[in-house]
Amino acid sequence: MAQLRIALAQVNPTVGDLGGNADKIVQWTRRAAGAGAHLVAFPEMALTGYPVEDLALRASFVEASQRALAALARRLADEGLGDLPVVTGYLDRRSVGLVRSGQPAGAPLDAAAWLHGGEVLVRSAKHHLPNYGVFDEYRIFVRGDRLPVVRVHGVDVATVVCEDLWQDGGPVSVTGAAGAGLLLALNASPYERNKDDVRLDLCARRAREAGCALAYVNMVGGQDELVFDGDSVIVGADGTPLARSPQFTEHLLVADLALPAADPSAEPGRTPVDALDGTTITVDRLVLSPDPLPAYPVEPQTVAEPLDDLAEVYGALVLGTRDYVRKNGFRSVVLGLSGGIDSALVATLASDAIGPENVHVILLPSRYSSEGSVIDAEELVKRQGLNARTVPIARMVEAFEEQLDLHGLAAENLQARIRANVWMAMSNEHGHLVLTGGNKSELATGYSTLYGDSAGGFGPIKDVFKLTVWELARWRNTQAGRSSPFLHPFAEEPIPEAIIRKEPSAELRPGQRDVDSLPEYDVLDPLLTDYVERDMGRAALLAAGHDPALVDRVIRLVDIAEYKRRQYPPGPKITPKNFGRDRRLPITNAWRER
Amino acid sequence: MAQLRIALAQVNPTVGDLGGNADKIVQWTRRAAGAGAHLVAFPEMALTGYPVEDLALRASFVEASQRALAALARRLADEGLGDLPVVTGYLDRRSVGLVRSGQPAGAPLDAAAWLHGGEVLVRSAKHHLPNYGVFDEYRIFVRGDRLPVVRVHGVDVATVVCEDLWQDGGPVSVTGAAGAGLLLALNASPYERNKDDVRLDLCARRAREAGCALAYVNMVGGQDELVFDGDSVIVGADGTPLARSPQFTEHLLVADLALPAADPSAEPGRTPVDALDGTTITVDRLVLSPDPLPAYPVEPQTVAEPLDDLAEVYGALVLGTRDYVRKNGFRSVVLGLSGGIDSALVATLASDAIGPENVHVILLPSRYSSEGSVIDAEELVKRQGLNARTVPIARMVEAFEEQLDLHGLAAENLQARIRANVWMAMSNEHGHLVLTGGNKSELATGYSTLYGDSAGGFGPIKDVFKLTVWELARWRNTQAGRSSPFLHPFAEEPIPEAIIRKEPSAELRPGQRDVDSLPEYDVLDPLLTDYVERDMGRAALLAAGHDPALVDRVIRLVDIAEYKRRQYPPGPKITPKNFGRDRRLPITNAWRER
Repeated sequence: MAQLRIALAQVNPTVGDLGGNADKIVQWTRRAAGAGAHLVAFPEMALTGYPVEDLALRASFVEASQRALAALARRLADEGLGDLPVVTGYLDRRSVGLVRSGQPAGAPLDAAAWLHGGEVLVRSAKHHLPNYGVFDEYRIFVRGDRLPVVRVHGVDVATVVCEDLWQDGGPVSVTGAAGAGLLLALNASPYERNKDDVRLDLCARRAREAGCALAYVNMVGGQDELVFDGDSVIVGADGTPLARSPQFTEHLLVADLALPAADPSAEPGRTPVDALDGTTITVDRLVLSPDPLPAYPVEPQTVAEPLDDLAEVYGALVLGTRDYVRKNGFRSVVLGLSGGIDSALVATLASDAIGPENVHVILLPSRYSSEGSVIDAEELVKRQGLNARTVPIARMVEAFEEQLDLHGLAAENLQARIRANVWMAMSNEHGHLVLTGGNKSELATGYSTLYGDSAGGFGPIKDVFKLTVWELARWRNTQAGRSSPFLHPFAEEPIPEAIIRKEPSAELRPGQRDVDSLPEYDVLDPLLTDYVERDMGRAALLAAGHDPALVDRVIRLVDIAEYKRRQYPPGPKITPKNFGRDRRLPITNAWRER
Repeated sequence: MAQLRIALAQVNPTVGDLGGNADKIVQWTRRAAGAGAHLVAFPEMALTGYPVEDLALRASFVEASQRALAALARRLADEGLGDLPVVTGYLDRRSVGLVRSGQPAGAPLDAAAWLHGGEVLVRSAKHHLPNYGVFDEYRIFVRGDRLPVVRVHGVDVATVVCEDLWQDGGPVSVTGAAGAGLLLALNASPYERNKDDVRLDLCARRAREAGCALAYVNMVGGQDELVFDGDSVIVGADGTPLARSPQFTEHLLVADLALPAADPSAEPGRTPVDALDGTTITVDRLVLSPDPLPAYPVEPQTVAEPLDDLAEVYGALVLGTRDYVRKNGFRSVVLGLSGGIDSALVATLASDAIGPENVHVILLPSRYSSEGSVIDAEELVKRQGLNARTVPIARMVEAFEEQLDLHGLAAENLQARIRANVWMAMSNEHGHLVLTGGNKSELATGYSTLYGDSAGGFGPIKDVFKLTVWELARWRNTQAGRSSPFLHPFAEEPIPEAIIRKEPSAELRPGQRDVDSLPEYDVLDPLLTDYVERDMGRAALLAAGHDPALVDRVIRLVDIAEYKRRQYPPGPKITPKNFGRDRRLPITNAWRER
């Protein structure tokens, strides 16, 4: 056996910020060197950020990424870090081969490179391209066809990228035959509830299949609509977890591994191998340092416990909000505070994400606002120390009503839109990002106003059902007095109990209650979960035991709400071709044509 | 040679409306039978509409499409049309073979079927899946691997679907070897400016390659963000156009063709053939009627002239607007009329699309509106006979200003948002669809207000640069007195000359002019065309001769505008998975879970 100290740099890059991301790679490489690591690995596309969406199709961006990689290799050497092998993801393109109509322009690659001694030692790229759910990678990448195996202190280390681990065949399937002692996987794997267990099982299975230890480095951070949870992990050849990073925070996972020494007869060079998926993978074997190190004492390693379910969801929401604000260049947020549970939770998340001193709330009472709502909102402001302002909307509503004769929903929507006008005006005047407070139960059923309460730059709880909103609020109150990267140290419970207990109401007409328009949330939310998240059809919903009348009512609500959202996009988007569709570009994108 | 009278049914289906689309196929089959056709062909996915987006991934929708196809075959026979072979596109799925992780759920197929004698005779599916530009078909389809060749009155007719014609290899490449006398291509090919010439050249080239005549039937109509222009065409084996449908209207193209008689020794059955793209295509040969018909007199055929450029663009805009309104279940529209050229053109397009009696305009003068603007808007109302109403906004602005101290852009945006509140209120109260008036030059450079002038359900000129807005307005005035499917018969010029001549201004502050904020449109629009539509980088823009200072200024404007649009989505969307991205569902979707 040979010893190797590897470091997994679970970092938080920003899409398009090639300079800032390169700085980050240098800093964390220096930390890894300081910890005595023999190899440091960064996530998939760490140099460009992920997902880059259609930016991959812009030649000037691909070329900028290639130049940034070469410059990074030189800079690491210039700064005395050239001896430590660095593996990082970046954006490249295929330089040879057919360009076919219908293939992504410029043949971009979701690439990985080994940097050493001021040079790019070897390049490879993701072979299996995910093209489902949040991924559309057939649109922007062509597949890689190479497995680098680099000998470091007498251990053969193979590198693959993300989806290659999830699919059978391809580079992972040839790792065992290539005699690798360690499989290193670079990832940008987005958070989903309970996905951490699935990932750990996958890593264990692939390690056993390859017959070698597996090091899984994942990205962390919020990027556009996704949150990456980190949770980087190292498992032994038998699948046992050896080291694990905490979730939702940048972390350097350093671990001393005892790995099989490489077969000295395996010569450097390229060997094509059948990859068991109809393709051929070329094993690209290099030797950096042929001999195992003399024995050295092992350091204790981190094995972070995964968070429990609510803490995990809360952490994802805080990090998603913080990074959306920060990566879009904002320092403060503004939101309407109604005295209800949704805006109360959003304000609290914002306090935890960027500090209460950067949270601006507006109380916008109307003739239908209850006295209790105003008092509860004021109590929350006091407990959290928010910047608050009251702007009564009665006179604005009257000015519209003098000209327009509105009834029912039209009259209700007008109030919601006037409130949105106020917070958009505060955003334009003071530069705050607008947060919007809709939860997933409301949004799914269309219980919100277009250009009204749904208006805003980021909706922290848009993917959280109402029952979970209450659970999160209660959970957050139990954490009062604690401090963490996700928790501002509020001395007392940040959300007044009255807000959690009150019956939900939009307060847009006298005596209005959510249950006048929607089923009770304890039957609605499970049905929405099956219909929206599991995409079950009517027959399957009935078979699952949901009430038939409720199924028909909720299908109708959801379909009409989705339909209306699609009818009213944010406003026209420009398109690259006449009558085409929008480019898919990242939201928080720091890259500019220069 | 053998004679065959074929009919191409260039129809306008609605996505999801399986019942309505089936009715349409029956009606047009009856017309084809009445015209004595021996074969009638419908577009790609005519039974489901196109594009179905992620609806393809819902099992209940795929099964509904399969059932609708079988029912359609029986109904055609029941209604006495069973002897006429009908070829139509529909949605199917692969019933055998591996289901692989990462492949579209349920293995959906962009399928085509021959219907005859109450039965489905043969099924095939699109082999080449477009996955660029407006297409993302790797996400929702798996590829077909079959070329049906059906003998009709002694002629072997092969059928392929859309993209199969655009790519080398695959079913088209084996058509010649299969001895087909006619290649029939079912299409849903979206309109782009000048694409008709590209398509005709492609058809001619493929006909020559296959050594047989080619019949190309295309969809027509607006669907969501796309417009299908029709322009169905038949070319001879030498590539000469023989018959051609008009653009932007439903049409039955009937043509008598003299085609090579099939080789009687070619037996029915299945033969695998190398498709020259790394795959194997199975030629599926059937015989419906083995012998050529006795000679019969040939009917004259339609060879429609393509429209000139501005007429074509105008037709696309009218059809896109009409179908967006109609397929979304609206009968009327509302828009703000400022007295400027953009809202004037949008009002005129709306009149041409759905009749001026269904167009409601609101004049919303503020303290900064010029007298000329109001007079010009009133003149347009009078000439077109629109429903008009004046709602001064001064008092509403004051009610906000009493509470908020706003400056600069924040004050300008407030006025635009108050106007949007008024038209959204009219939409909610009266059920009109809101049309928005932004042009592509404005939207690309961010010269518009989020939730203000950009708010609305459909932006008829969102893809039209400002110079083209003026050209279209002038062109439309030259058509005064004419009537067509795209032109309401206005007796006089529908757009007052003063509106076309005036200097563009948003009129949100005293003396404001577009040129205070934007370059002159005659330099801006060509640069936007190169940057936005051709996706040229900075270096390429300079090489193309654009002024360097202007290039930097416009890149900055466009990037910031795109960035802001992405930061402020329409409001949160619900997602199928926690922290995932939105489902991609069609907008004008008539299908419901039942």
